[in-house]
Amino acid sequence: MGTRIGVGLLGLGTVGGGVASILLNPQERHPLVKDLELVKVAVRDLKRPRPVALPDAMLTTDPAAVVNDPAVDVLVEVIGGIEPARSLILQAIDAGKSVVTANKAVIARHGTEIAAAAKAAGVYVLIEAAVGGGIPIIEPLKQSLGANRIDRVSGIINGTTNYILTRMAEEGAAYEAVLADAQRLGYAEADPAADVDGLDAADKIAILSTLAFGGPIDRSAIPTTGISALQGSDVDYARQLGYGVKLLAVAERLGKEGHDPLPLSLRVQPTLVPKDHPLAGVNGVNNAILVEGEPIGRVMFYGPGAGAGPTASAVVADILNIAGIRQASDSAGSVDPLLAADSWRSCVLDESGAIRQRHYVRFNTLDAPGVIGKVGGCFGECGVSIQSIVQFNASEAGAEIVVITHEVTERQVSDALQAITDLPEVSGLAAHLGCL
Amino acid sequence: MGTRIGVGLLGLGTVGGGVASILLNPQERHPLVKDLELVKVAVRDLKRPRPVALPDAMLTTDPAAVVNDPAVDVLVEVIGGIEPARSLILQAIDAGKSVVTANKAVIARHGTEIAAAAKAAGVYVLIEAAVGGGIPIIEPLKQSLGANRIDRVSGIINGTTNYILTRMAEEGAAYEAVLADAQRLGYAEADPAADVDGLDAADKIAILSTLAFGGPIDRSAIPTTGISALQGSDVDYARQLGYGVKLLAVAERLGKEGHDPLPLSLRVQPTLVPKDHPLAGVNGVNNAILVEGEPIGRVMFYGPGAGAGPTASAVVADILNIAGIRQASDSAGSVDPLLAADSWRSCVLDESGAIRQRHYVRFNTLDAPGVIGKVGGCFGECGVSIQSIVQFNASEAGAEIVVITHEVTERQVSDALQAITDLPEVSGLAAHLGCL
Repeated sequence: MGTRIGVGLLGLGTVGGGVASILLNPQERHPLVKDLELVKVAVRDLKRPRPVALPDAMLTTDPAAVVNDPAVDVLVEVIGGIEPARSLILQAIDAGKSVVTANKAVIARHGTEIAAAAKAAGVYVLIEAAVGGGIPIIEPLKQSLGANRIDRVSGIINGTTNYILTRMAEEGAAYEAVLADAQRLGYAEADPAADVDGLDAADKIAILSTLAFGGPIDRSAIPTTGISALQGSDVDYARQLGYGVKLLAVAERLGKEGHDPLPLSLRVQPTLVPKDHPLAGVNGVNNAILVEGEPIGRVMFYGPGAGAGPTASAVVADILNIAGIRQASDSAGSVDPLLAADSWRSCVLDESGAIRQRHYVRFNTLDAPGVIGKVGGCFGECGVSIQSIVQFNASEAGAEIVVITHEVTERQVSDALQAITDLPEVSGLAAHLGCL
Repeated sequence: MGTRIGVGLLGLGTVGGGVASILLNPQERHPLVKDLELVKVAVRDLKRPRPVALPDAMLTTDPAAVVNDPAVDVLVEVIGGIEPARSLILQAIDAGKSVVTANKAVIARHGTEIAAAAKAAGVYVLIEAAVGGGIPIIEPLKQSLGANRIDRVSGIINGTTNYILTRMAEEGAAYEAVLADAQRLGYAEADPAADVDGLDAADKIAILSTLAFGGPIDRSAIPTTGISALQGSDVDYARQLGYGVKLLAVAERLGKEGHDPLPLSLRVQPTLVPKDHPLAGVNGVNNAILVEGEPIGRVMFYGPGAGAGPTASAVVADILNIAGIRQASDSAGSVDPLLAADSWRSCVLDESGAIRQRHYVRFNTLDAPGVIGKVGGCFGECGVSIQSIVQFNASEAGAEIVVITHEVTERQVSDALQAITDLPEVSGLAAHLGCL
């Protein structure tokens, strides 16, 4: 050991405080943590009480003073948001410093620009904390699973929505009531849109996809459905049919080999998960990511998806990685290509509707004889094969018909839904979710 | 990219064939796989049919010819067993070559010797494939979780026994019948002792413990109970009480801070796992490892614990890691301390009986009034608090009493069991398992 690494920190909120706390208390951790020295910290307000006690001289309100401090070897960015985070990251790279960030929004949108700058400067930009909190998932995709042809990455990667969905399922409660409670408890933001509309999950699956398939896609084009329109009755019907409802983010390849660019399907949507599926038991604010590939088969990574401690664990792991590799290498500018994770291929979002998956749909109908037959007939005519069709809540006011299909294309399902909602006995499509 | 890495392979069986297959088919994998060149392969019999076609000139029956080939930069050892594996690994290290091995037996017994030799030579010995098949668990313990004080590593790390236990639970079948079927299907060896007696799991938890806590322990002193004496009735009673039975391997610290040497408890034993615990859903030949620490909380790694493809995925990941770090470093002899994973502390197995856990015990008793009261009384006198006490199968021939305790020390439980088996109404202790 012995090479001291100076760490500069932008932000001393929940995660920043967690990082500082680890660096100031290295005992019982890997001995290399002792070589990480916190030298400068940018905060918004010098007077605010802090979770950790730091000498006054270490604090500044000027982020540039941290970036440009010659004692700072590695810059840790945990202020979040797009700007000034993006500019500060680029400034640090230009100054020849490696960067560790937990900022999924800036990486999902400006990852290509940042990676190009890092490559030109011969430094690392490490992002383990940007997806899955403390769960090691970025590093395994970059290194431990590098021998595989990755076919699919999917998972529960937003803790707030998983907390809400877990309580809806356990208590039979309505979305709005649980959201209000989650806001009160601090599990959801005052403005919950980034979480409940699926935008945070879309940022994260864009990042995982780039690593898994070797090239970026257009973040803004990812089909994204959140949980704000999800009804308690669908969570209940799913449960009766043997499923849980999870907000799943999915990235999968459409072509097995030799496509350039490689066509991918990415999506974020509420999805039925069979009770015996490994993702079904992932509850509360936990996250889990499934990676499928050849020859590995299927591996899953599970743990706390957010929180000061887990996220700080991932941030410090990245700093350690930079410190460790620096001990192996005295030649500036040479980087480990696995850790650097440059793109090595072009990828493109497929818009042909060719992706195949199972669907859950619910219709409001008249409670008349033969409706189930007519609905089933429309599916059949569009080539949609059905796994189950069940009537719920029949009364004089009408009935609800719930259908779970086998794997079919988007196009087949839209055609069938059009034909069914045109039936005089069907008053409307009440829900349309994915199904594993 | 561009630096070619010559790979020598000892063994071309299931795993070796899988490794060769990945190296010969690099397309769609990380581009660095193209830089790995298979140059020499040692086999036992040149005439045997192979899963992969290799040029005759690449094959030899002399392992030393692979170790000493100047074109071999990295030696992959997948022949298994203690000797000649140990000697060949040491020879390669002495020749300045890094080694990748899937051999848990040799690492669990000779890991300290091998690590010392690797340190002296400035090379790596990487062992991702030795535990958990394709699941990334070695690398996360060495790098991604390095910021944590690890408190506990536990899991299902033997696929054969988990396959047998899964079928016993699902079919209500007896151990012997399922074992015979597993042998017929190739999931268990003709001599199943290493698996069913827990020795393989003990090798693996010794390796995980060394990485998690920073120092080796005495492999031969790990208390190890396999599943060969497990009775179907206990699997059934556990199910009725809301538990599955798994062969768990556990390594946990006893002292929180500042102990030297650090006292650890390691054990392998059939253990009741509550139905809603993340490990309860791990079935068939799958493995899963839970890591608990501060500040991460709890993370789990899940996937296929054996098989040619998953194990080869882990072997090639290790070769990639060596290739990647070589690109960052042209200075021979300097290693990344995280990847090298030297020991940095002394650990010792605690033999004081101070470890606390829950217990499941079953007694054969007379079906007489007051027996449950007397059994409960003995536990109480020894300070053992009880979670549940249930009588099964009462008849004229007697009854069975099943007790699940709260967390207590080994010593408290042994005292209570002695007192209970001394009761005239109790004919014997029929089962004693762990309980999460």
